[in-house]
Amino acid sequence: MPEFDIIKHYFAGTALSREDVILGIGDDAAILQPPANKQLAISTDTLISDVHFPVQTSAYDIGYKSLAVNLSDLAAMGAEPAWVSLAISLPDEDDVWLDMFMQGFNSLSKKFNLCLIGGDTTRGKLSITISVIGFVDATKALRRDKAMPGDAIYVTGTLGDARFGLQALQQQIKSDDDIDYCIARLNRPTPRVEAGQLLTEVGACAIDLSDGLLSDLGHICNASDCGAEIQLESVPLSKQLLTCMNQTPDWHTILNAGDDYELCFTVKQKDIPQMESLLSGVVSFSRIGVITQQKQIDCLYNNQVFSDIPSTGYDHFEK
Amino acid sequence: MPEFDIIKHYFAGTALSREDVILGIGDDAAILQPPANKQLAISTDTLISDVHFPVQTSAYDIGYKSLAVNLSDLAAMGAEPAWVSLAISLPDEDDVWLDMFMQGFNSLSKKFNLCLIGGDTTRGKLSITISVIGFVDATKALRRDKAMPGDAIYVTGTLGDARFGLQALQQQIKSDDDIDYCIARLNRPTPRVEAGQLLTEVGACAIDLSDGLLSDLGHICNASDCGAEIQLESVPLSKQLLTCMNQTPDWHTILNAGDDYELCFTVKQKDIPQMESLLSGVVSFSRIGVITQQKQIDCLYNNQVFSDIPSTGYDHFEK
Repeated sequence: MPEFDIIKHYFAGTALSREDVILGIGDDAAILQPPANKQLAISTDTLISDVHFPVQTSAYDIGYKSLAVNLSDLAAMGAEPAWVSLAISLPDEDDVWLDMFMQGFNSLSKKFNLCLIGGDTTRGKLSITISVIGFVDATKALRRDKAMPGDAIYVTGTLGDARFGLQALQQQIKSDDDIDYCIARLNRPTPRVEAGQLLTEVGACAIDLSDGLLSDLGHICNASDCGAEIQLESVPLSKQLLTCMNQTPDWHTILNAGDDYELCFTVKQKDIPQMESLLSGVVSFSRIGVITQQKQIDCLYNNQVFSDIPSTGYDHFEK
Repeated sequence: MPEFDIIKHYFAGTALSREDVILGIGDDAAILQPPANKQLAISTDTLISDVHFPVQTSAYDIGYKSLAVNLSDLAAMGAEPAWVSLAISLPDEDDVWLDMFMQGFNSLSKKFNLCLIGGDTTRGKLSITISVIGFVDATKALRRDKAMPGDAIYVTGTLGDARFGLQALQQQIKSDDDIDYCIARLNRPTPRVEAGQLLTEVGACAIDLSDGLLSDLGHICNASDCGAEIQLESVPLSKQLLTCMNQTPDWHTILNAGDDYELCFTVKQKDIPQMESLLSGVVSFSRIGVITQQKQIDCLYNNQVFSDIPSTGYDHFEK
């Protein structure tokens, strides 16, 4: 048996079982029973060493993050995760590395009752492609194209931590508890799966923040043909990041930061009480602005245009 | 917009539409409506340059073959192809290359009414990971683990052409029509999708021949806990391959050849007439042997053990 098939067998041994997986790893294809009256949400992401994670990232964190960023896409649709396939290219067979990788991967797959249904293992530069499939009620998916002027804009959690963590690693800044917190946010983002599913009850628009608030909110504005106004003083920052930034937020970095993997979502004014009741105790969330008619994103600070962040036409983000 | 997102938009523009694709490329995840009363078959394969295709392979052929080998997995389950996701790593943006790649890819996706529902584009060494999803009736998938002693063993098409084509390229053998035929079989294999779907009617066991007859039939034997006896004189060879091999088949190469992407399947004796009637006119097929009780694969020629191919214990192929 070719050596990389052994890896596939190893993966099969670590997979959770689910009743809707009729046939898992080991045949030409997996056979799955989709639930009645549900639609499927499917997302695919590739992570490449030194592009999507620093080369020194631990195998555990690579396994965790590869799955987390895919689950974050499902969260942004409001879907319930179910099945995952994993294609991995490795320079050589390294049992210790693989074992740690799968420990990181499985720490999240177990949390969400996600079954590994197949994939492929090849020899090559380290690269991981994951496809996750989840379930969502028909017409309830959190699309990007349903925002309307007047809708409130929210984000979950705090922004900018992961980007500061990356900078700290790149600049080899001496570590302390606050910096370690930011690095942990880079390596082990929390996909907001439960929050996404709850938001389907209020018909929200959502996107996950992978490229930074301005860029990702820009995608909502473009898809919905509208604009946005952000109150910077409402953008949630962790006390750890504020300490790292000497209590002076670098807004340019924070708003263009990648790797937050928080949700940015919009809700109609009338649905705000229900949304707040649903998410309360599940995840922290902050109202940061409002959807507008003019097709640009404006950043205000104390109701004044914030001159460090020029208003950005939404079509900057799409071609 | 990051340059590789432009590629994603390009892909979106070439995708076929299907009514069951509620939301295609462009949101955090695709939203799909699975058919009632069907199960899903899903397979993922990665192709890497210089491992799964020679470096000189044209972009068109890489696009074609990447999809063909995945469709071949669905064929081996008897599934009807529906949706595909494409994750591609490219060293740089090359519009001409991408255009040819997608022409090859789309030539097959159109043939099978397959909709591109998403994927990812990253910068890196050329690598393609494709996931295909198809539909199959519950309990009718062509599993590997249902073969029984006495079942007849069949293969579609002809074996060994692709491997000879690869050798001809590697050894820079001067091309002629017969060699070109073998190279075309390497670069543009025909996934036996229709044949696979028809075989679900007779409850066949099937696998697609990606690693060579002995290895792949070994997987059926292992999963079904049985063995096999092959009549070499019945193994179908193209007249082009026979010409290339000076009418003297190199059985060792042919039986261990990869890249055939034909189906190997088993049927109960009582189902042979129905199977022959179903496949007749759809694909050529040849009866090459029988499933046995003893857990090994024996190759016979004129009813004598063929000494060039030692009997192989089935557990050689699995660990």
